[in-house]
Amino acid sequence: MATDQKAEVKGEVGQALFEFLHMEMVSYLVSSKEKEDQGELISKLEALGYGVGARMMERSCRDVPRFRTELDAMVFLCKQFWVHLFNKQIDHLKTNNQDVFVLYDNNFRLLTHLTDSSQYSDELSRYVAFTSGILTGALSNLGIRSHISYEITKPPQCVFQVKVLL
Amino acid sequence: MATDQKAEVKGEVGQALFEFLHMEMVSYLVSSKEKEDQGELISKLEALGYGVGARMMERSCRDVPRFRTELDAMVFLCKQFWVHLFNKQIDHLKTNNQDVFVLYDNNFRLLTHLTDSSQYSDELSRYVAFTSGILTGALSNLGIRSHISYEITKPPQCVFQVKVLL
Repeated sequence: MATDQKAEVKGEVGQALFEFLHMEMVSYLVSSKEKEDQGELISKLEALGYGVGARMMERSCRDVPRFRTELDAMVFLCKQFWVHLFNKQIDHLKTNNQDVFVLYDNNFRLLTHLTDSSQYSDELSRYVAFTSGILTGALSNLGIRSHISYEITKPPQCVFQVKVLL
Repeated sequence: MATDQKAEVKGEVGQALFEFLHMEMVSYLVSSKEKEDQGELISKLEALGYGVGARMMERSCRDVPRFRTELDAMVFLCKQFWVHLFNKQIDHLKTNNQDVFVLYDNNFRLLTHLTDSSQYSDELSRYVAFTSGILTGALSNLGIRSHISYEITKPPQCVFQVKVLL
């Protein structure tokens, strides 16, 4: 029990360091890019996430057998990989059994400390773009090219749509 | 035992996420600031670290009694706080018993994956500047104004010198 609590605390603190750095990074990019448009800011965050996602996946799936299908890969990403990132699993995964996967995180960590007013949806997407890049990078490391889009209708819920490209 | 290992893995993975994001941030700043000088890059990294350090300390010392002396605060920083950041303690703390404290980390996490060639010492300092800012921010959160300098003579060893300002 004591050890469990310690594990919990350790995971939480490592998580906090990442979250704080992520917040500083977003606000730094916002302030340094005030003359540029929102699109460029988002692209930059996605590009930063891409590199991190590829490396995290490299490390996460080190001891895991190869995935036979895209669905297997996606289930790994929703379970183990998401826990590595955010200490929680994706809450719900839907697929059309072809090339589209929809991932629901009902309590997305990087949105929980922000206002829930949906009028700031442009600003909220700043806090999801880095993770969207992580997803693209992680999948690319598994040999899966993808296009990711995301929707924040009821923060802190976040919905990622993964379209697998041929 | 199993739980211990799990705790270890969890801590390590959270750590990895932070390390990868840190590396991406440094290389992003390097590439975006190529026309500016090294000094400006270092200042920017220190400023980013300051915000993170202040928040991390706020969280780390939440349940800790107030520190009576600067030495008490410094010991907390070398033990608990450093573990929160890097999963290890500072290896050695020296002080002149007045206003100078010297912290030795013999295996500084953010340097371990880099080359150990000392000819790149200018580049190595890029990987320490953020943490130097973390220290300033963390101490400032404890009401201690400080000036931090650092030396990397035998990477991955890193030596931080904290001068307390009155």
